[in-house]
Amino acid sequence: MSLDVGVIGVGMIGQDHIRRLTHVLSGARVVAVTDSDLDRARTVADDLPGATVHGSGQELIDDPAVAAVLVTSWGPTHEEYVLAAIAAGKQVFVEKPLATTREACERIIDAEVAAGRRLVQVGFMRRYDPQYRAMKAVVTSGEIGVPLVVHAAHRNASVPDHYTADMVINDTVVHDVDTTRWLLDDEIVAVTVLKPRVSGRAAPGFQDPLVVLLETASGVLVDVEASVNVAYGYDIRGEILGEQGTVELSESAGAVVKTAGRVAGRVPVDWRERFERAFDVEFQEWVNAVRVGGPTGPSSWDGYAATVVCDAGAASLASGSREAVVLRDKPDLYKDA
Amino acid sequence: MSLDVGVIGVGMIGQDHIRRLTHVLSGARVVAVTDSDLDRARTVADDLPGATVHGSGQELIDDPAVAAVLVTSWGPTHEEYVLAAIAAGKQVFVEKPLATTREACERIIDAEVAAGRRLVQVGFMRRYDPQYRAMKAVVTSGEIGVPLVVHAAHRNASVPDHYTADMVINDTVVHDVDTTRWLLDDEIVAVTVLKPRVSGRAAPGFQDPLVVLLETASGVLVDVEASVNVAYGYDIRGEILGEQGTVELSESAGAVVKTAGRVAGRVPVDWRERFERAFDVEFQEWVNAVRVGGPTGPSSWDGYAATVVCDAGAASLASGSREAVVLRDKPDLYKDA
Amino acid sequence: MSLDVGVIGVGMIGQDHIRRLTHVLSGARVVAVTDSDLDRARTVADDLPGATVHGSGQELIDDPAVAAVLVTSWGPTHEEYVLAAIAAGKQVFVEKPLATTREACERIIDAEVAAGRRLVQVGFMRRYDPQYRAMKAVVTSGEIGVPLVVHAAHRNASVPDHYTADMVINDTVVHDVDTTRWLLDDEIVAVTVLKPRVSGRAAPGFQDPLVVLLETASGVLVDVEASVNVAYGYDIRGEILGEQGTVELSESAGAVVKTAGRVAGRVPVDWRERFERAFDVEFQEWVNAVRVGGPTGPSSWDGYAATVVCDAGAASLASGSREAVVLRDKPDLYKDA
Amino acid sequence: MSLDVGVIGVGMIGQDHIRRLTHVLSGARVVAVTDSDLDRARTVADDLPGATVHGSGQELIDDPAVAAVLVTSWGPTHEEYVLAAIAAGKQVFVEKPLATTREACERIIDAEVAAGRRLVQVGFMRRYDPQYRAMKAVVTSGEIGVPLVVHAAHRNASVPDHYTADMVINDTVVHDVDTTRWLLDDEIVAVTVLKPRVSGRAAPGFQDPLVVLLETASGVLVDVEASVNVAYGYDIRGEILGEQGTVELSESAGAVVKTAGRVAGRVPVDWRERFERAFDVEFQEWVNAVRVGGPTGPSSWDGYAATVVCDAGAASLASGSREAVVLRDKPDLYKDA
Repeated sequence: MSLDVGVIGVGMIGQDHIRRLTHVLSGARVVAVTDSDLDRARTVADDLPGATVHGSGQELIDDPAVAAVLVTSWGPTHEEYVLAAIAAGKQVFVEKPLATTREACERIIDAEVAAGRRLVQVGFMRRYDPQYRAMKAVVTSGEIGVPLVVHAAHRNASVPDHYTADMVINDTVVHDVDTTRWLLDDEIVAVTVLKPRVSGRAAPGFQDPLVVLLETASGVLVDVEASVNVAYGYDIRGEILGEQGTVELSESAGAVVKTAGRVAGRVPVDWRERFERAFDVEFQEWVNAVRVGGPTGPSSWDGYAATVVCDAGAASLASGSREAVVLRDKPDLYKDA
Repeated sequence: MSLDVGVIGVGMIGQDHIRRLTHVLSGARVVAVTDSDLDRARTVADDLPGATVHGSGQELIDDPAVAAVLVTSWGPTHEEYVLAAIAAGKQVFVEKPLATTREACERIIDAEVAAGRRLVQVGFMRRYDPQYRAMKAVVTSGEIGVPLVVHAAHRNASVPDHYTADMVINDTVVHDVDTTRWLLDDEIVAVTVLKPRVSGRAAPGFQDPLVVLLETASGVLVDVEASVNVAYGYDIRGEILGEQGTVELSESAGAVVKTAGRVAGRVPVDWRERFERAFDVEFQEWVNAVRVGGPTGPSSWDGYAATVVCDAGAASLASGSREAVVLRDKPDLYKDA
Repeated sequence: MSLDVGVIGVGMIGQDHIRRLTHVLSGARVVAVTDSDLDRARTVADDLPGATVHGSGQELIDDPAVAAVLVTSWGPTHEEYVLAAIAAGKQVFVEKPLATTREACERIIDAEVAAGRRLVQVGFMRRYDPQYRAMKAVVTSGEIGVPLVVHAAHRNASVPDHYTADMVINDTVVHDVDTTRWLLDDEIVAVTVLKPRVSGRAAPGFQDPLVVLLETASGVLVDVEASVNVAYGYDIRGEILGEQGTVELSESAGAVVKTAGRVAGRVPVDWRERFERAFDVEFQEWVNAVRVGGPTGPSSWDGYAATVVCDAGAASLASGSREAVVLRDKPDLYKDA
Repeated sequence: MSLDVGVIGVGMIGQDHIRRLTHVLSGARVVAVTDSDLDRARTVADDLPGATVHGSGQELIDDPAVAAVLVTSWGPTHEEYVLAAIAAGKQVFVEKPLATTREACERIIDAEVAAGRRLVQVGFMRRYDPQYRAMKAVVTSGEIGVPLVVHAAHRNASVPDHYTADMVINDTVVHDVDTTRWLLDDEIVAVTVLKPRVSGRAAPGFQDPLVVLLETASGVLVDVEASVNVAYGYDIRGEILGEQGTVELSESAGAVVKTAGRVAGRVPVDWRERFERAFDVEFQEWVNAVRVGGPTGPSSWDGYAATVVCDAGAASLASGSREAVVLRDKPDLYKDA
């Protein structure tokens, strides 16, 4: 049987995931949608035979035809819908962030722990990228020894005018926070945000680039350069130095062309091009996993940790100082996951 | 609605495509299977809820529940099933070869032309590989100018003991025949098979490697090294030299690891690893295309041309001489395709 | 005419440069040597037809047969010999450091300024490496726009047991200090030393690796990872992010070998292998330049700035804090150089 | 003592080697020059303090001040000067070709054998290129097993208008003939020249590119693409497939630049840029070797074999057929060399 999914929030991301569930992946279909803009919800539903349009997220969650919920609405609404899905005993995939405050994330953790089983997966898609997976496999194999230092860079060609340095932390660096925790199997205990020379391509008053230093419980030092106006393309870099070797994300340049004195490959235009495959795998694995039990991907705990680390990052951006990260105790539900 | 597919031949390849249609892709389901080994067909059907087991390919094709046919049986049986599908007016995807003789391929072309529309797609999956597509895009863009020379290599780590040099032509080099025709949009007019020093890893009496020279109608010279006992992995290489530049398949080495004085990446183990994504895209595009009209991938003409070129290759392997390739006139049905 | 060189200090480095001047380069010959170990000096001189052994550096400098002086003695003796060479009006090439204290460097600058012309060149050989030069050319061309962030790594396979974190700053990171100043044409104004997880391969009590943050006058942020027990080889990395592009040192892996599922290249064993060519070019350009006028390479000012920055690095290593770098005013002699 | 060299022929190549011996390398000086254009010889000598201008090659060879002879005159004159040098018992470095006919090469071999020791080195500089040397080291190590197939390409951006396909064989492919023999330690026994589609950039009537097939005594098949109007730069490619692996020349792209959606490196402009280092090493090793005994580089036998193979190539270019290569017996003087 297909997994019958209801989608809350059908903006750009929501529509892209609906396309994915409907036209790319196996084993799922979208049976219900809602949105704060109901006209938009109706327009989207017109292309989904048999899909219901609900007047609210709660109504959609309560619909018995909805077996699992996909939350792709505006971040501040995530908590409400995730909690409602947990209350209804339904699986819920929520795009990052899990919730926008530490306290909201903790309420979700409490509810899920009370439910006694994992119901929530958070949309950190890099864990499904073939290159990150190859990197993780090398770390896990022990081939490079104990990790000591991580270098990462996250570069966007450009961002909308309303982008701020806080958003760089919360929407951009958050991915590096998650990959760091996942690759190293380690928690982050402190964050320091550094402010290099500002790019002339950044909007006035916007501190871009940033360099974010993350320290893990075991002492690994991670430097993340986040630059969101680099013009030349979308570029995600990562290297882990271990005690006896290193592993790096390779660059897949597509076809290699030699013309006019240059040997050249392609740099991806944007995150869609770079991570298209990761999104597909992420959702297919979620669909497969929830049909046979429960999710195996990033958990509420991962969403909570990311939010708390990003909070510390925002604090450091404001204070100019190193900010410690303090997490609550990790419930058993999230151990060995 | 899903595309309801019947599968003739459920050996290794057939089962892999059933898995793909059932668990990976969107918009298709397998509703019927058959095999020369009916027990095997029944075992496969046990995992396919609602699927019928038919006693023969003809019976499966005649089943009104079957909207489209997938032929993954033994090569010599392809002609019969493809002709039957055409006769039934059903779409048919046939793994290469289209048929094992020039005459059989011509009978299929005649039948399809008589039907007046494309019903057949042949399984040349490299056209769906992201790297080959990037290469094709560069050629089409005119960036490297008119193609002059193509270098290709097709290397397998090892082959089963029963493999012969004829099989290298028909099962291995056939892919390079198709990619050459497709990349250059040009027909092959002559084939010469050269016999380098034999690998000590080849079975006794087996001429491995081969170097196959293809000449196209517009004069492009293509050298294809086919080596099927290279031990180190599965390696597919390609470069096109044009009048003002070149384009090469890049190597995607996954994570780059530095240990013990070496910087190293991964070489794929086999064709499954290398072309897994290409197979997925190939079938998804076929499913999408036949649901809205007809196939857009490799046609009966492509299957015919490949078979005729490989016949000439086998003749050259035996004669030691250059063998001309003569094709019949191309029916209008296959022009602009 | 050849440039007649006298060499003070004929340990490992001194002997290597004597070999270079005698057997590799054009236009120079070694006519005199001295060393704190006179027996060693005599042994070295035995292979240099016509070379004189002097009892002291001062005596060598005073020898009218000596046209130019090469100082490759122990660091703390550099000041004395460089000052003596300046006093004698002779060209002097001094291996880094120019001198071991800020004050000593300033005395050298004062003496050279009083002499009214450049007599001193400091041995920062990376400026002569083909890859660094290609990187510098890209920065200078404006192709990547104004530099914003620099990432660098300096890795040694191993170090002798007596190595300390202070030596990592003064002997290892000093090269990155110089390349940063040269590549960016900018002075360093602050240093912060960070202490990642310690490698199990480091000697007990040795903080290895370090991450050293350099800030330049124009705000560029530079992170330098210095790891001297990485086991896998000698690895020098560098990337400059500019406003509209990046430039990276490429990796020259020599021959690319595919065996046993891996595609692999070579990582250099040590600095000799990696920078052999840079040393050759450095000395040839010095010989050529001093024969026709004066040195064009790294100046006393460069040696002074490097020493002051490394002092701040050592202070930061001890304090755990960001340490400002304050340089004296730059004499006209060193402008436009 | 320096090696005192007399140079016969001071055109572009001769002048470049004079610059090398005078300003780049150690241990040699140019003491005499001559040229068919004596004014040119005098102009060149003006920059060489103490150098004599001779009225003929024979006179130069007879000059007791000349210890070794460098022949960089027009190819058809090589035989005369090499034989004269041998007669005078002097070392001679001759740019390729050793001589322009098989018979002339044989006369040189006879003379050198009669002299009883190696006096001749031929200018095949690729043997001194770091990348070719790395490739040779891999083959020799046995890491890739017994060689089976070699792929090579030799591409020039453009050639002068008077260039012909015969010159492509004799001046361009001759290098691949030598590297093949040297890398494989094997003789070439047959040559077939193939004629791909002609580049629109080639002069009217000029067959460019060519693909030249070489067969070795042990059965290795070598395909050499020679294209001399590729526009995009100078590109030398090589790969050796062995029984259990491959080795390829790596591409050294200098700095890697990312701008405007591309990741790009540099392709060399011409052979000077690509092989500058190889020429330097070649001459330094020749100078070093002849000062202590005799040459260790490419011998008269290598020059002879290359000429005979190129003759067969020119015959195949004319005949369109495979042409066998027959060499005389190899004198003992050239064994184990």
